[in-house]
Amino acid sequence: MEFMDGICKTRECAWDVLLSESMKDQEAIVEGAIHSIRNMGDVAFVILRKKEGLFQTVYENDKTNVSIHDLKEAMCVRLTGTLHEEERAPHGRELRISHVEILSSPAEPLPLAIDKWKLNTSLEAKLNYRPIALRNVQERAKFKIQEALVRAFRDYLYEKGFTEIHTPKIGARGAEGGANLFKLSYFHKPAVLAQSPQFYKQMMVGVFDRVFETGPVFRAEKHNTKRHLNEYTSLDFEMGYINGFEDIMEMETGFLQYAVELLKKDYAHELSILKVELPKVDKIPAVRFDKAKELVAEKYKRKIRNPYDLEPEEEALIGRYFKEEYDADFVFVTHYPSKKRPFYAMDDPSDEKFTLSFDLLFKGLEVTTGGQRIHDYQMLKDKIAARGMDEEGMEQYLDTFKHGMPPHGGLGIGLERLTMQILGEENVRETCLFPRDMNRLEP
Amino acid sequence: MEFMDGICKTRECAWDVLLSESMKDQEAIVEGAIHSIRNMGDVAFVILRKKEGLFQTVYENDKTNVSIHDLKEAMCVRLTGTLHEEERAPHGRELRISHVEILSSPAEPLPLAIDKWKLNTSLEAKLNYRPIALRNVQERAKFKIQEALVRAFRDYLYEKGFTEIHTPKIGARGAEGGANLFKLSYFHKPAVLAQSPQFYKQMMVGVFDRVFETGPVFRAEKHNTKRHLNEYTSLDFEMGYINGFEDIMEMETGFLQYAVELLKKDYAHELSILKVELPKVDKIPAVRFDKAKELVAEKYKRKIRNPYDLEPEEEALIGRYFKEEYDADFVFVTHYPSKKRPFYAMDDPSDEKFTLSFDLLFKGLEVTTGGQRIHDYQMLKDKIAARGMDEEGMEQYLDTFKHGMPPHGGLGIGLERLTMQILGEENVRETCLFPRDMNRLEP
Repeated sequence: MEFMDGICKTRECAWDVLLSESMKDQEAIVEGAIHSIRNMGDVAFVILRKKEGLFQTVYENDKTNVSIHDLKEAMCVRLTGTLHEEERAPHGRELRISHVEILSSPAEPLPLAIDKWKLNTSLEAKLNYRPIALRNVQERAKFKIQEALVRAFRDYLYEKGFTEIHTPKIGARGAEGGANLFKLSYFHKPAVLAQSPQFYKQMMVGVFDRVFETGPVFRAEKHNTKRHLNEYTSLDFEMGYINGFEDIMEMETGFLQYAVELLKKDYAHELSILKVELPKVDKIPAVRFDKAKELVAEKYKRKIRNPYDLEPEEEALIGRYFKEEYDADFVFVTHYPSKKRPFYAMDDPSDEKFTLSFDLLFKGLEVTTGGQRIHDYQMLKDKIAARGMDEEGMEQYLDTFKHGMPPHGGLGIGLERLTMQILGEENVRETCLFPRDMNRLEP
Repeated sequence: MEFMDGICKTRECAWDVLLSESMKDQEAIVEGAIHSIRNMGDVAFVILRKKEGLFQTVYENDKTNVSIHDLKEAMCVRLTGTLHEEERAPHGRELRISHVEILSSPAEPLPLAIDKWKLNTSLEAKLNYRPIALRNVQERAKFKIQEALVRAFRDYLYEKGFTEIHTPKIGARGAEGGANLFKLSYFHKPAVLAQSPQFYKQMMVGVFDRVFETGPVFRAEKHNTKRHLNEYTSLDFEMGYINGFEDIMEMETGFLQYAVELLKKDYAHELSILKVELPKVDKIPAVRFDKAKELVAEKYKRKIRNPYDLEPEEEALIGRYFKEEYDADFVFVTHYPSKKRPFYAMDDPSDEKFTLSFDLLFKGLEVTTGGQRIHDYQMLKDKIAARGMDEEGMEQYLDTFKHGMPPHGGLGIGLERLTMQILGEENVRETCLFPRDMNRLEP
């Protein structure tokens, strides 16, 4: 009988070993995709793309089992050779090839020049050739930064006593209501895709006190803008026993501080590839919605057209104002008007036209919506009735409150938007592996 | 201007501080839901349910601001009092209440006796009252075990150089094909929900070499069994530059070893609540599909009815065989027949009727399917043609192979099934927060 013991028997030399002092002048095996070939005549530089980065190998005529003409870009190879110090090589080290094993060979040349440092093509082309375009070193680095953000979110919240949950994406009705629901037939019953895990995470506050989820949400919004996706990854948390909605903002600030530290510690390579300057997160200003509108109206001589809503230009100006006045990259805008928030938002007892809620703007773009929720059963029922809404399909949600819920609140962060703003991208599709918009369902 | 600095200003005493030596006889604030009240006359024991566990508090007549009759189960409260040693209390400590602040009050008595150690009710009732039923200490502990499994999966793979990805759940076509696709209309275009991230994770092997995803998958299977869910959480990974499909099995074995260690280290409390005996994972036997069928046919006097498929009873017997013969909880069954595997599975070059693939059985139930995939463009096209399939909608997937892919493979683990088998549950719905089956779309 054969047994698995959990140890992969790879023949390849690990990245850190490859670059270690002890491997100098030693023989090693290196695997990767041929990212580029620079043929100098007697010698050719064959650059391998590996998950950790680019690695230089050197082909010398008559010293290996293949001709340089047998090698081409996008081949996957296993190279044997000797490691040498070479200060002009990316990591100060190169492999002089003694043997080439071709693992696979492309059928056609690449449609994009992915070996260029910056992929010089349109967003449209990048998305059409997504699996190829992402092989570019800068393109793929964006998604390592994204990974760091999700990872920081989870690790920070685990540390703070949150429980991770997985809630259904197919349901009988949406949490936010409205027209932006994708509908489907579920064994001949009408169903919808979840716009957010809102109801579920609130229900789970009654169980675990603090919960989070990182998963897809679906919005059938007919917006084809640079900021909208119809499917995106939402970082959601919900916490009970809060003293006020400031606790939610503090928790988010703590997460952002943690994320910046994780990026510096484990993702320095990608930060340098993308020349990212990390935002300031030591303290984040919080300003009331109505106050914020006044401040930018005054400073930028802009008329307030709608006192109950923020236009995208106004968000941008608020971002600009706080950058100029406080050198702040982030700003919490608090106390959004009640009529612009969902029914479950807690109204401000001192002025019920406003809610105990907030958006977080990052460089002038909303990346988070959050706030305190109503936890009192009767108050929730009254609000639903006052809005002329139907309780149908919300029985289980309402039952949770009937049987006791602590004061609580939470938030949802748009992962792609957060990544976009950290990287200074202009279009949220740049920071989504496979974006879904009104016109794009593939790849 | 107000600023957030990332520090939550909670007044409550943290759990570890609450139980610490230094807090003996000190005043503290404790928050939680009233899990049960045992009224002894002059004294009442008020058990709080907190995220970390149950905590005993003591109400004494005339020593607080409320009457014992003002307190009821499912209230959320903030209690002030003095901490005392009490060896009969769950953690050797109790709080003698001096002041009660009622944070919220239930509108009706609970429909289930959640304060019982074991929730003595039917699965149906548990699912109908899910947000309430999960407040039971045993019920919620199951999902902490589930959390540990996901967490271990991610942490182990991060350590092994994998990149986390987020792939779309709405797409133009399914990866596995077949009838079990949920269909929806996507801005008047036909679309489906992803059965698995298969195509996407393979495409991303060309970018990051090693990738993983933890997210929902959707199967419109008309199976209403104890083992099936129509939406579940899949733990997927895919890795390039493998030497053989054994590498995939070794990686999974390593994950399981890591998960068992994490459970022991950080989830001992929940393991003891649920009396879980952790499975043996130091080495996992691997047996060929045809050999496994023979072994159980012989030992259990069972006729082989279909040489190309494993019936559930046969899986259970294979599990039993390896438990009896090797004291193994897990067994890899390898070399599944080609016609039972999807087109992208790599056939065994030594016998093309079989594939370089495997299932992992855990106590006789399949919890993982994985294997090596075809990485050669022409081989993939030939297999599609041989199966009479249409390349339409797979252009981007195929293009990835046209432009070079390393030998690779991967797997998908059903999170709820893995949790179910660890806990020894009889029905997979027990280990899904909000199960979706043919008849259940709510809550």
